Amino acid sequence: MKINGKHYYTIWMEDDDPSTVYIIDQRWLPHRFEVEAIRSTAEMARAIKEMHLRGAPLIGAAAAYGMYLATLEHSGDPIAELELLQAAEQLRATRPTAVNLTWALDEQLAALKAARSLEEQRAIARRTAQNIAADSVERCRSIGLHGLPIIEALAAKKPGQPVNILTHCNAGWLACIDYGTATSPIYHAHTKGIPVHVWVDETRPRNQGARITAWELLQEGVPHTVIPDNTGGHLMQSGMVDMVIVGSDRTTRCGDVANKIGTYLKALAAHDNQVPFYVALPSSTFDWTLCDGIADIPIEERAGREVSHIQGLKDGEVAEVLLTPTESPVVNYAFDVTPSRLVTALITERGVCAAQEEAILSLFPEKVLR
Amino acid sequence: MKINGKHYYTIWMEDDDPSTVYIIDQRWLPHRFEVEAIRSTAEMARAIKEMHLRGAPLIGAAAAYGMYLATLEHSGDPIAELELLQAAEQLRATRPTAVNLTWALDEQLAALKAARSLEEQRAIARRTAQNIAADSVERCRSIGLHGLPIIEALAAKKPGQPVNILTHCNAGWLACIDYGTATSPIYHAHTKGIPVHVWVDETRPRNQGARITAWELLQEGVPHTVIPDNTGGHLMQSGMVDMVIVGSDRTTRCGDVANKIGTYLKALAAHDNQVPFYVALPSSTFDWTLCDGIADIPIEERAGREVSHIQGLKDGEVAEVLLTPTESPVVNYAFDVTPSRLVTALITERGVCAAQEEAILSLFPEKVLR
Repeated sequence: MKINGKHYYTIWMEDDDPSTVYIIDQRWLPHRFEVEAIRSTAEMARAIKEMHLRGAPLIGAAAAYGMYLATLEHSGDPIAELELLQAAEQLRATRPTAVNLTWALDEQLAALKAARSLEEQRAIARRTAQNIAADSVERCRSIGLHGLPIIEALAAKKPGQPVNILTHCNAGWLACIDYGTATSPIYHAHTKGIPVHVWVDETRPRNQGARITAWELLQEGVPHTVIPDNTGGHLMQSGMVDMVIVGSDRTTRCGDVANKIGTYLKALAAHDNQVPFYVALPSSTFDWTLCDGIADIPIEERAGREVSHIQGLKDGEVAEVLLTPTESPVVNYAFDVTPSRLVTALITERGVCAAQEEAILSLFPEKVLR
Repeated sequence: MKINGKHYYTIWMEDDDPSTVYIIDQRWLPHRFEVEAIRSTAEMARAIKEMHLRGAPLIGAAAAYGMYLATLEHSGDPIAELELLQAAEQLRATRPTAVNLTWALDEQLAALKAARSLEEQRAIARRTAQNIAADSVERCRSIGLHGLPIIEALAAKKPGQPVNILTHCNAGWLACIDYGTATSPIYHAHTKGIPVHVWVDETRPRNQGARITAWELLQEGVPHTVIPDNTGGHLMQSGMVDMVIVGSDRTTRCGDVANKIGTYLKALAAHDNQVPFYVALPSSTFDWTLCDGIADIPIEERAGREVSHIQGLKDGEVAEVLLTPTESPVVNYAFDVTPSRLVTALITERGVCAAQEEAILSLFPEKVLR
């Protein structure tokens, strides 16, 4: 998608420099647009852990590129499998809830088994990372095409008026490589000339909505309004939301959805007001080993400083302020689980299905347990 | 309650100075504790509108003192009724959702009808304001005594473990004159030695929870943890909340509750997880003319700057930072309405009752329509 009118991916390499992976350092958005050059596995692990980049699909691609960077840190003999596993573990430990991370690392480790030399390891790792990124772009595009008719149907019910879509966190293209997941149907609708308006949850504590979703919608010219996370219930009660669409960090085979903390509250409000609640996800986000998300998905606990402090712009500089009394404890759970009963449908790259095991498996028959 | 170990009310006059009303200017909490001297109706109106003070009961008392200050702005003849009404309107316009404001002003206007001279007007207005404040203290104390057995019963089910209580916004003593509404049962339990722990919703956009509730709980030594507004659903799903207790800005005769935006989302989560959801309120918060709160309670829309910017401490100074892209619109609804079906019970100064018209009227039989 576009930044200042120029097309970008969120992670890329330049043809003339095999030693560097570039990312958009999202920590300074929307106040500053910065590209970061990453040249080692450790730098990539830090970028993931400290959220220079975030979003399940992008984390997966970044981890895959992190494995490529591991192959550059050696010379001579091929890297031993143990060292590859160690590099993978270093990357895997950065964000425990993100199933894409594990998926991408496993893809890399499996692909690298075919390599006979360090040169081959480098070539395979680079190609695998590029493929994971390209796959993500294509999956996100497909999610948009499958989600588009849902927005078209809502638009048909209110001719001339915008379809009001609420989203939480950033499941936009900055969480992916391009298009986004939750935003992809929105971008496709906007491009097609369907009037849309997006309610953007600010998404405390890290404000990915207010900072990143708002910024990327601005860059694409999509009408939107930023709201506190507390606001969505009132909007839905008042008939001001036509649909909710969010992303997912991990989805069970039975349709439970782990996503940014607060998603569950919006799902409850949508259910209480008969507002359809959609989850857009690439299938790499499925955790096929789990059914009961509330019981079985571990919830990442992040640093309390993300709650007690917040970052914003002051006098042209990005600054951090303290919000709470110094002595007050805080806690920072990063995700919650929305039970499948509250999800109207899942929008995947293969199509739209109910958030139920049978419906999900009908789109992904290769995942039927035998 | 105590600040730095010394007892305070939130609004008071000193015996030796009939021209000044003192309030705690809550805008700088928790970072700075400041007392403000108020000497005119206009100053009081500004203090209410710009939220130097907030909270339904305190707003009512402040408006009543604002009418007293109006009587000081004249000399000679008694103030004409028209001028009294104008002063009342100036105060009434500051916060359209707060029913206590209207109630307190009507009390003053009714009481002032008996006055024959400016001296009598001053004496009556001062006494009425003091009575409203004293009544509030007594009502809040009673709410605490009526709510205490609810906490005691929960404590009895988990001996030795703290009762985990989630609250939203600040319905603490800083929203009242003393004790608070939602916090009064908590303070009473804490004083009695019952172990309690309070989950404090930060309460964006103005962060009354993170700033004020956390600070007053700290001052009283009550264990607590500040959480983003998004967190409560996950906590309730995980069995980490034993009860929710919130205040109310306006409650209909049928039990619908207008309270700080986001309250409805917590009520939905409590209902979904069988966590009891209590609303503590002085009866002055009832709007006896309304039944359907969602249809009939007007929701105040406040300045967008409260959403786009936030205030905190930086290098020892209170500073404001910009959170959103400059060009992104924001919207700021101050309240939402929790339908009575989600409310376990109301805790009033006359006792605990179901959030249903019949039950409410059994506690307030004088309000039965004839």
